[in-house]
Amino acid sequence: MPDFIRTVPPGDDRERLTCPDCGFVAYENPKIVVGSVVSEGGRILLCRRAIEPRRGFWTLPAGYMEMAETVEEGARREAWEEAQARIALEGVMAVYSIARIGQVQVIFRAGFESPGFAPGPESLECRLFAWEELPWEEIAFPSVHWALHRWRALEGQALGAPVGNPAEDPRGMRPMPRQAAL
Amino acid sequence: MPDFIRTVPPGDDRERLTCPDCGFVAYENPKIVVGSVVSEGGRILLCRRAIEPRRGFWTLPAGYMEMAETVEEGARREAWEEAQARIALEGVMAVYSIARIGQVQVIFRAGFESPGFAPGPESLECRLFAWEELPWEEIAFPSVHWALHRWRALEGQALGAPVGNPAEDPRGMRPMPRQAAL
Repeated sequence: MPDFIRTVPPGDDRERLTCPDCGFVAYENPKIVVGSVVSEGGRILLCRRAIEPRRGFWTLPAGYMEMAETVEEGARREAWEEAQARIALEGVMAVYSIARIGQVQVIFRAGFESPGFAPGPESLECRLFAWEELPWEEIAFPSVHWALHRWRALEGQALGAPVGNPAEDPRGMRPMPRQAAL
Repeated sequence: MPDFIRTVPPGDDRERLTCPDCGFVAYENPKIVVGSVVSEGGRILLCRRAIEPRRGFWTLPAGYMEMAETVEEGARREAWEEAQARIALEGVMAVYSIARIGQVQVIFRAGFESPGFAPGPESLECRLFAWEELPWEEIAFPSVHWALHRWRALEGQALGAPVGNPAEDPRGMRPMPRQAAL
């Protein structure tokens, strides 16, 4: 296989990964993450990551959407895989763009469809946290912060149109501040 | 280059395109379309497609999101590329999943930021349509129907949380009914 080169294909306006022999263009596309803020009685479900990146840090049940599913199916599947939780989606709470890494996150507000949860293979543990107990120093990603604060701002209210990124990081360009590994 | 095969990689739970020699997994991910229902004075901007699929049919200014942009930037870029329109986004109106083709559509409600529009290279023409004038028989894709009706239902109202697919096609599995080419 020849090495792909970055060149602007005919009729295009930006560089693409292109095969110099046959002209095949390997388009790169942003990836979609689907996830949920799942709560019960004011407490929020978080999972402690068993995998890199950010092993040992806390995150929402969320992950890459698969090909033949909907965003809703993906969000429910991730809650099952990561927290063995059957969840009921209420609606989209946020659509975040992490332009730095080519990612779009569709985050739902959800409750439990049936009781119970337990860590799946990608989680070290899962826990319900009251707002005051949330492990802010050990959160895996900036967008988890965003989603938790969005959830809090909407607590007890109907979902409005989802917000985008916060004003201080409109393009999702800031990496997570360095923290000690857990 | 050896032909990739479909096999379940170790630790995974579904078939992936995998290189039988080196084990490289070519993940396939859903693609994101960003677009807008742009209106002015109750009239909606549509573009008649100059490219396949559905050449000659009418669509919203929308297209595939690029890697280093946000959903908002993508929606504005597409309005510029397809309709030479500078638009002002109001918020997300709908998040549709077209599971049949592995696509997620993030659709905004928008107005014009500055006056004027004209067909870009991928459009044969662009036009503002009053609701009663919309070319229902010549709409390119089911999701354009969905978005137009969602826009109509919200006319004059604040945006709520975005809806997902309509109840009659919750997974985006139905192709567009056959129509005569234009």
